[in-house]
Amino acid sequence: MGSTKLILVLFCLLLIISSSSAAHKKKIQARKPCRRLVFYFHDIIYNGKNTECNFSHCKCTSLGQQRSHFGDVVVFDDPITLDNNLHSTPIGRAQGFYLYDKKETFTAWLVFSFVFNSTAHKSSLNFAGADPLMNKTRDISVIGGTGDFFMARGIATLRTDAFEGEVYFRLCVDIKLSKCW
Amino acid sequence: MGSTKLILVLFCLLLIISSSSAAHKKKIQARKPCRRLVFYFHDIIYNGKNTECNFSHCKCTSLGQQRSHFGDVVVFDDPITLDNNLHSTPIGRAQGFYLYDKKETFTAWLVFSFVFNSTAHKSSLNFAGADPLMNKTRDISVIGGTGDFFMARGIATLRTDAFEGEVYFRLCVDIKLSKCW
Amino acid sequence: MGSTKLILVLFCLLLIISSSSAAHKKKIQARKPCRRLVFYFHDIIYNGKNTECNFSHCKCTSLGQQRSHFGDVVVFDDPITLDNNLHSTPIGRAQGFYLYDKKETFTAWLVFSFVFNSTAHKSSLNFAGADPLMNKTRDISVIGGTGDFFMARGIATLRTDAFEGEVYFRLCVDIKLSKCW
Repeated sequence: MGSTKLILVLFCLLLIISSSSAAHKKKIQARKPCRRLVFYFHDIIYNGKNTECNFSHCKCTSLGQQRSHFGDVVVFDDPITLDNNLHSTPIGRAQGFYLYDKKETFTAWLVFSFVFNSTAHKSSLNFAGADPLMNKTRDISVIGGTGDFFMARGIATLRTDAFEGEVYFRLCVDIKLSKCW
Repeated sequence: MGSTKLILVLFCLLLIISSSSAAHKKKIQARKPCRRLVFYFHDIIYNGKNTECNFSHCKCTSLGQQRSHFGDVVVFDDPITLDNNLHSTPIGRAQGFYLYDKKETFTAWLVFSFVFNSTAHKSSLNFAGADPLMNKTRDISVIGGTGDFFMARGIATLRTDAFEGEVYFRLCVDIKLSKCW
Repeated sequence: MGSTKLILVLFCLLLIISSSSAAHKKKIQARKPCRRLVFYFHDIIYNGKNTECNFSHCKCTSLGQQRSHFGDVVVFDDPITLDNNLHSTPIGRAQGFYLYDKKETFTAWLVFSFVFNSTAHKSSLNFAGADPLMNKTRDISVIGGTGDFFMARGIATLRTDAFEGEVYFRLCVDIKLSKCW
């Protein structure tokens, strides 16, 4: 009889412990992403004819008075690939713009979407943040998503994977989602 | 005596089941919005004099070299109405900008706010995302809100409800909030 | 014997009450920020030579046809301080842009980051929203953060703290985060 009651008490205690330990685990795992994705995005600045708008890159405003391009706004429509090869089949497009926002050094600010190819339905991830180009890695925010990435939130770590002067650059985008729906 | 213990055991079991079933229900309801709103927003491109800035639409940069308007940036301050009638009393303004971001076809990227008329306090909803105009519907992210829409998140489905060449277009914006505070 | 059972019943009841009261408390505290920060940001429009790009402010497009600057896009890289003194040591930079988006009156729309100085790691907060300058205070959304502000969300109340015509303005930014990680 006493042992049955003991079991009940232990059982209820277990309930509390399990719920509080779940909360604790949640805290510990807080920064562990629920989803992680790595993509490469390729910006082709120069396509051989040096026009201001080639097929994926369009300079809207070029004040031309700044070595650091301060004030330049660049609209892009860039292929995204799973590896660092520009000629791999793109899985989507990076669309949006960046601007150069400092006089003394190269630093950018960007807001854009990854729009994924999909036969079934459309998916996208939206990003915004400061991009101090001279740093090895830069974190920006995932500010939302649609389709497969419905309600997504988290951060993306940018790393310049290749840089060929005024011709081409490639960013490695390491996406760590901390809200998955 | 034994039945009382049984009741207690069942009671505790019920506690666990109810909490796990609540979690399950939460998962099922995940994509069901906590708030849904439909608005129309009216962009008047041409006001009879074909200036680059009329009362609600201002083209910042027009590179003029692209049939698809690639690189053009358009700032807008457009009326929002509850029905598809441009002459209905506006309930607020859509303010922000869009840019055309592809060479081959018409596709846009936009970031803007719905700023609602309100006597008591100010409310707004903020949006960002890719807008591939040739698709029947396009999903963008609700990236935040203020006032009545404090901490709002979700998606908005855009549909071109009317399009009159270089004169006027109307978007139906079906807002589905999945975070309501 | 009966009292032990009673204790068990009360114990289980307590479990339910505590969990539901926690939920209630959560609801009540909903709008109470988990973190609050006040900063000043200084935009120096004119630096003595009236160039379009001085060290912290760069006008990308100036259509020049509007008294209200409708359509103008301004890129900035402004110091942030803890008090309202421009000469205090900046704790970071406000980087992004604003645009003037109305014909009849001064009203802006902005999207930017606060990028904080940090030796250990980089932290930033990202903002977006409408900024009707003529209102005493304006709320915009905190759309994300990185580093110390990982996954941050909330609102920021802007107040024009000083305005010296075409020379200088200072914003007081009262940040109220409702999601802290």
